Amino acid sequence: MSNLAKHIVWQEKRVTRQDRYRLNNHRSCLIWFTGLSGAGKTTLATALEKELYEYGIRSYVLDGDNLRHGLNSNLGFSPEDRKENIRRIGEVSKLFVDAGLFALTAMISPYREDRQLVRERFAKHEFIEVYVKCPLEVCEKRDPKGLYKKARKGEIQHFTGISAPYEEPLHPEIIVESDKQTLEQSVQQVIQYLRENHYLDDWQQS
Amino acid sequence: MSNLAKHIVWQEKRVTRQDRYRLNNHRSCLIWFTGLSGAGKTTLATALEKELYEYGIRSYVLDGDNLRHGLNSNLGFSPEDRKENIRRIGEVSKLFVDAGLFALTAMISPYREDRQLVRERFAKHEFIEVYVKCPLEVCEKRDPKGLYKKARKGEIQHFTGISAPYEEPLHPEIIVESDKQTLEQSVQQVIQYLRENHYLDDWQQS
Repeated sequence: MSNLAKHIVWQEKRVTRQDRYRLNNHRSCLIWFTGLSGAGKTTLATALEKELYEYGIRSYVLDGDNLRHGLNSNLGFSPEDRKENIRRIGEVSKLFVDAGLFALTAMISPYREDRQLVRERFAKHEFIEVYVKCPLEVCEKRDPKGLYKKARKGEIQHFTGISAPYEEPLHPEIIVESDKQTLEQSVQQVIQYLRENHYLDDWQQS
Repeated sequence: MSNLAKHIVWQEKRVTRQDRYRLNNHRSCLIWFTGLSGAGKTTLATALEKELYEYGIRSYVLDGDNLRHGLNSNLGFSPEDRKENIRRIGEVSKLFVDAGLFALTAMISPYREDRQLVRERFAKHEFIEVYVKCPLEVCEKRDPKGLYKKARKGEIQHFTGISAPYEEPLHPEIIVESDKQTLEQSVQQVIQYLRENHYLDDWQQS
């Protein structure tokens, strides 16, 4: 933190989180989808966004690829840049959760440490990690963006699963197996978790 | 943009902006407050957030100082870092506007070029620039954070108004003179602009 930043005072917000919950009639949280490229993170997050909309719940998909066209357009794929990429999306998610929305992030986010750093920025029940599990060979066969092919040819360096590791979550809140279940089943699995854990309840002012 | 970024495809969102407007019963926009330190940007943005809440409108203050504790914690106050600070907040605002909220940003943002770059990222009616005008001597007398004192002593470099320029907006949508009007008058001035320009209308699906 620079010299000037030390002088900076956190400003009080006047509209509270509770106010926002009351206005929306729902609470907020971050649902963090992690998994290999091609596992179906964005597809699932986007389908969940649609389903939550049907429930009258405000959510927003923060897609790692999309954000590289905007907020993270000045980041590459070095280990440091990947770390910063995840950190920024974690911070933006925090703003969204504070603003009263369900933030849905879709990023490979291959390292446990990076995901843990994001988790620690949230209260216990605000952070839900969803491991979108799919064998590498299936992801590589799908190869929706043709990236595995390029990675195998050596045209892309540090590609997760090929030339860089993917560290599976040890204790994710939800595991979805995208090679064994349909998209609709996966969406309903997440919805079921949210329902059981009262994320979908009408918000009652306490 | 790196080699891999070229391969990245923009993912289709399934919940549209219109869907969000319909769910919230209001549209979204960015209200960008600019002005000297101590002019009252955050105070006004926060009071406006509260007022919009009373109207049932979802808004969120993105305060330049607050964000230096999170998203922009790795930025200092060099010209490059200030530019990046503004760019990132502009991009986050874009996400908020896309998510259906009124984004309210409170940053000195002293350079026309930087503000223009943000403006260009938005559709014409999505971006509202509010110049919170206040003479330097009044801001310096207020000095709520004691920064002017430090800047005069040379303890802070590149301080806007003292050792770095502030470029007034040439064509802001709104000018608020915080030394001549009360906070309530300023809030109502912005509300009046929003009302006249149909930002406060119930959302009608066309």
